[in-house]
Amino acid sequence: MREITVAVPGGSYPILIGGGLLREVGVRLAAAGCRGSLALVADAGVATLYAPAVAASLKEAGFTSTLIEIPAGEQSKSLECLGGLYARFAAAGLDRRAAVVALGGGVVGDLAGFAAATYLRGIDFVQVPTTLLAQVDASVGGKTAIDIPAGKNLVGAFHQPRLVLVDLQTLETLPEPDFRSGLAEVIKYGVIADPVLFALLEARRQEILARSEGLLAEIVSRSCEIKAEVVGADEREAGLREILNYGHTLGHAVEAVAGYGRYLHGEAVAIGMAAAASLGVRLGLLPAETAARIEALIASFGLPERLREPLDPDALLAAMHRDKKARAGSLRFVLARTLGAVIVTEVPDELARAAAVAVQPRPPTE
Amino acid sequence: MREITVAVPGGSYPILIGGGLLREVGVRLAAAGCRGSLALVADAGVATLYAPAVAASLKEAGFTSTLIEIPAGEQSKSLECLGGLYARFAAAGLDRRAAVVALGGGVVGDLAGFAAATYLRGIDFVQVPTTLLAQVDASVGGKTAIDIPAGKNLVGAFHQPRLVLVDLQTLETLPEPDFRSGLAEVIKYGVIADPVLFALLEARRQEILARSEGLLAEIVSRSCEIKAEVVGADEREAGLREILNYGHTLGHAVEAVAGYGRYLHGEAVAIGMAAAASLGVRLGLLPAETAARIEALIASFGLPERLREPLDPDALLAAMHRDKKARAGSLRFVLARTLGAVIVTEVPDELARAAAVAVQPRPPTE
Repeated sequence: MREITVAVPGGSYPILIGGGLLREVGVRLAAAGCRGSLALVADAGVATLYAPAVAASLKEAGFTSTLIEIPAGEQSKSLECLGGLYARFAAAGLDRRAAVVALGGGVVGDLAGFAAATYLRGIDFVQVPTTLLAQVDASVGGKTAIDIPAGKNLVGAFHQPRLVLVDLQTLETLPEPDFRSGLAEVIKYGVIADPVLFALLEARRQEILARSEGLLAEIVSRSCEIKAEVVGADEREAGLREILNYGHTLGHAVEAVAGYGRYLHGEAVAIGMAAAASLGVRLGLLPAETAARIEALIASFGLPERLREPLDPDALLAAMHRDKKARAGSLRFVLARTLGAVIVTEVPDELARAAAVAVQPRPPTE
Repeated sequence: MREITVAVPGGSYPILIGGGLLREVGVRLAAAGCRGSLALVADAGVATLYAPAVAASLKEAGFTSTLIEIPAGEQSKSLECLGGLYARFAAAGLDRRAAVVALGGGVVGDLAGFAAATYLRGIDFVQVPTTLLAQVDASVGGKTAIDIPAGKNLVGAFHQPRLVLVDLQTLETLPEPDFRSGLAEVIKYGVIADPVLFALLEARRQEILARSEGLLAEIVSRSCEIKAEVVGADEREAGLREILNYGHTLGHAVEAVAGYGRYLHGEAVAIGMAAAASLGVRLGLLPAETAARIEALIASFGLPERLREPLDPDALLAAMHRDKKARAGSLRFVLARTLGAVIVTEVPDELARAAAVAVQPRPPTE
């Protein structure tokens, strides 16, 4: 088992990474100082797979827990579903010593985390991410969120977990597209911060795609370490943290314009990373051969470098401007200069639009 | 104008107290560093009285502001109303530099404050409290909250304001029962921390009830100072902060059992303070003459020392146990030992029930 310590304002928390940790949830929570009753939140699919083992582990360690199932999918990140969680928390008698345990992917983590951040003005939160994306992204940073009709993740809170438990065995049941989508974020960490990780992804592609537990342990822990270093002790989004947005400026726009669900998050980020690479070459920031390596790595993991169907470049440009990360004025892109080093720069609209043109599907004649 | 600096984790904010400050909201916000667009939240009644002056001041200082009216009353502290605020924030294009200005009493401050705490994971919040209760209580502590069907204030966040502006002239239009309800909290500060304030309330009762601006400035600023000292730089509820709960253990139970709205918050707190005084005497903690002074001061401001109609003591006891501040086991009461000094102590159920019996209406024969 590997352990990563994440510094947060006023303290730190551990991320434990290993195979079979689900069966140890109870003792790990007790060791982390959890004492009260627990709400275990999971979507129906994940609950079927894993809730019995987790509940048994919690019971064995002497915890009282209530399983709360939510429907799978982004539509659960709603005020209505949030209100349902609050009602269940109250019915279960959760008090200020209680903790919310999020078992699942990003949707459950975001929703249950926000509920934990706000119930009784904040109770303990434990994450047990079961998707690669949640393991390498949501484990660090303390972001929780729900969606409102006006946009995704427009409402939320920063709420650091007390503990994150990553059971690599949960990746065995992850559908292939979701697994590859998570790998897009791992590629991102390689590009922005770690040429060794990037080279590992190139060299051990087959074992990674075969979900070798040893390699998964390596790439998940390295990803969490990088994110923890970048986020540092300053939990609010500012400065250095912006580099985590690599591939996301256009990626978020692709998700929004195509309609949420058309592209998995990692697929959209992969397209965004390819666009950032070509933009970097165009601006003379990135050698063409490095851009080619990035694009080749994306493709080698079965991730898209281009849109599957055309999307209006002007609509993508407008969506980039609407993104809540856009300040008034110019768009900001994270661009690589070499593997492991990026800059954040304002990009004129013509060039941002050109990047949106560059990721259109290749014409059939090619 | 008086200025009180409230220390909060990572910084501080000012409370400005004076007459006519509503007409200076714009320049004061600019001086406090607000730069973005603003959402001005008020209930319909307050908006009619004051929104034009505030909006004019904001416009004059170059701010873009959107007035958002909510229905008056506790029922606005709901998830539904919160969702309505989020939608209005998005429609008004609020970004991360924006601020929410709460103009009104506790309901508006709690609701708009929670919306500010969670929109885009937290944007600036400015309080312009227009009731005495909000001025002396909600100005300090950073608590925001909404209600859910399972209970009042069960959902919320700690979110410190950037600035609090107390315009004492807004108290001129405050209905008499609300004004007296606010005075109950001022009496509380005298009992728990400041015999000089207590003596001032005794000596200058008539001028205070006549709402003399000079005396209001004194009691509001002293109340805010005391609360700021008690809350200190530790914003989470713990330790010393519990003394602010003086009169609230039974007070909250009275509000809940009588049905919210039957007693104003300050009326319930007044009854709770009288009960705490008699309990203190019974336990040999408080001299009977001091208890008599506390009860006399409560009565002299037209506040109740006893229930207007009988309430089942067992129901009150059960409600005290249900209060979210109750830990497992014994009830905790804040009890005065003398004016300006209190202790927090566990109280056995028989004595807590006896306190609930002691505040029943006097039989008609008396």
